[in-house]
Amino acid sequence: MAEALVKNGLEVSLIDRSPQVMGTLDDDMGALVSNALRDFGVTLYLEESLTSFSTKDGRVTGVVTDKRTLPADIVILGLGVRPNTELAAAAGIPLGEKGSIRVNERMETGIAGIWAAGDCAESFHLVSRRPFYIALGTVANRHGRVAGINLGGGYATFTGVMGTAVTKICQVEIARTGLQEKEIAALGLEHVSAVIKSRTKAGYYPGAGEISVKLLAEKGSGRLLGGQIVGMEGSAKRIDTVATALHAGFTVEEMINLDLGYAPPFSPVWDPVVTAARVLAKKL
Amino acid sequence: MAEALVKNGLEVSLIDRSPQVMGTLDDDMGALVSNALRDFGVTLYLEESLTSFSTKDGRVTGVVTDKRTLPADIVILGLGVRPNTELAAAAGIPLGEKGSIRVNERMETGIAGIWAAGDCAESFHLVSRRPFYIALGTVANRHGRVAGINLGGGYATFTGVMGTAVTKICQVEIARTGLQEKEIAALGLEHVSAVIKSRTKAGYYPGAGEISVKLLAEKGSGRLLGGQIVGMEGSAKRIDTVATALHAGFTVEEMINLDLGYAPPFSPVWDPVVTAARVLAKKL
Repeated sequence: MAEALVKNGLEVSLIDRSPQVMGTLDDDMGALVSNALRDFGVTLYLEESLTSFSTKDGRVTGVVTDKRTLPADIVILGLGVRPNTELAAAAGIPLGEKGSIRVNERMETGIAGIWAAGDCAESFHLVSRRPFYIALGTVANRHGRVAGINLGGGYATFTGVMGTAVTKICQVEIARTGLQEKEIAALGLEHVSAVIKSRTKAGYYPGAGEISVKLLAEKGSGRLLGGQIVGMEGSAKRIDTVATALHAGFTVEEMINLDLGYAPPFSPVWDPVVTAARVLAKKL
Repeated sequence: MAEALVKNGLEVSLIDRSPQVMGTLDDDMGALVSNALRDFGVTLYLEESLTSFSTKDGRVTGVVTDKRTLPADIVILGLGVRPNTELAAAAGIPLGEKGSIRVNERMETGIAGIWAAGDCAESFHLVSRRPFYIALGTVANRHGRVAGINLGGGYATFTGVMGTAVTKICQVEIARTGLQEKEIAALGLEHVSAVIKSRTKAGYYPGAGEISVKLLAEKGSGRLLGGQIVGMEGSAKRIDTVATALHAGFTVEEMINLDLGYAPPFSPVWDPVVTAARVLAKKL
């Protein structure tokens, strides 16, 4: 929305109580997205909380934070996502993570014959090995396929999610998968991380843009725990390599040996994901 | 070269003794590349062999094939790659696949203290589990790193290759990894394959282009053996997901469960690679 409004000539302020926008990234990677928004012309007010609105004649005229009042013609609230499970709870169906409907691997709820799928239903995180709530179209779609097959008398299981997500803000591509720092800490695990800067294509190739890759691995074992990417065109879908490596349970050392595609229009000789793994391996 | 010459206004004919260009792809996928070259204005003469040149006053005036003579002002020969190992052979160093220098995992030749790396040296194929010769910059670079570390008194091993390669002809992106049909047959394995057509982005998103994905799996076990991709911008690097799955030894069923990135600018809800896996799984 901020991007669309700036493009249409509006003066846009974005208030976020977090240190950086995109809380699904660690702060160091989120800062790259914050900067991209600033470069595009969005004014950011970070670590600042909305407290109320100032109004006049029943219309909002300003946004009041814990630090200032910003005059406003239009206010758009993006306050997060919560599963809509009141009906299920009232019917006695057990809930799980963040109030989502608890399901088994076949997407069946705690009451036999009642199934759930989509943004109301719980998932299983394949890295943390714990129940997990994530409201994404891909996950909902996969949920639906599994629930549908089972409802129709077939047999299918939903194996779980990696927390993979990609998005685009202005020209900047953003991707993440696996666990971020705060999730790793919440599990009581210790990690080592590396952030590298590289290019999306061979440096001399027209259109080569900057790409930053962060990889996180478990201290000691070197087991890959997650990855985050922020960069120009051709950056986001590189997260699929990290997601697939997570599915495989690879260590950082195993990632170094990946035989990935190289040609000047697509990548430097060492793919940025592999470069990140090489830098991270030295820190383990 | 064909692309560059057409762009410069020359009339270009391409002669290939194979049924399709790009012999590193199966014929059904190679046909997509052949068609892209034809659409760009290159005249193809396939399943046709060069036999000699017609000359006048010591200059080439035409190319003689087993079927015709084509008048020519410029002739460019692309006849493949062969390792330059005469010196090594004369020195008594054992050779391996296609005359390349046989090396152990540390890139040491059959003679202690003599090391080899790059287009002259043999590799190990991680799917066929056999020695393999491949002349690619990425492989040479990885060879060099391993040989260099060992030469310097360190310890490193070259784990092997997947045969991953990407390239671009005109606007068409081309990628392959693992084994192709003729390689699978040569190993005495049987396979099942599926080819799907999808889009590089959500269908309604500006710039969504066609992408074709072929996956090959072992009959019975469902073990992934290889993949090939031909499509518009955003196609080629999707091969990295297949290459990483090959490193992991995934079955087609395991590929269906991959949690890959989705957002409209980057992919349909079901990534084309996963769609191919779903279609292939039904054929196993």
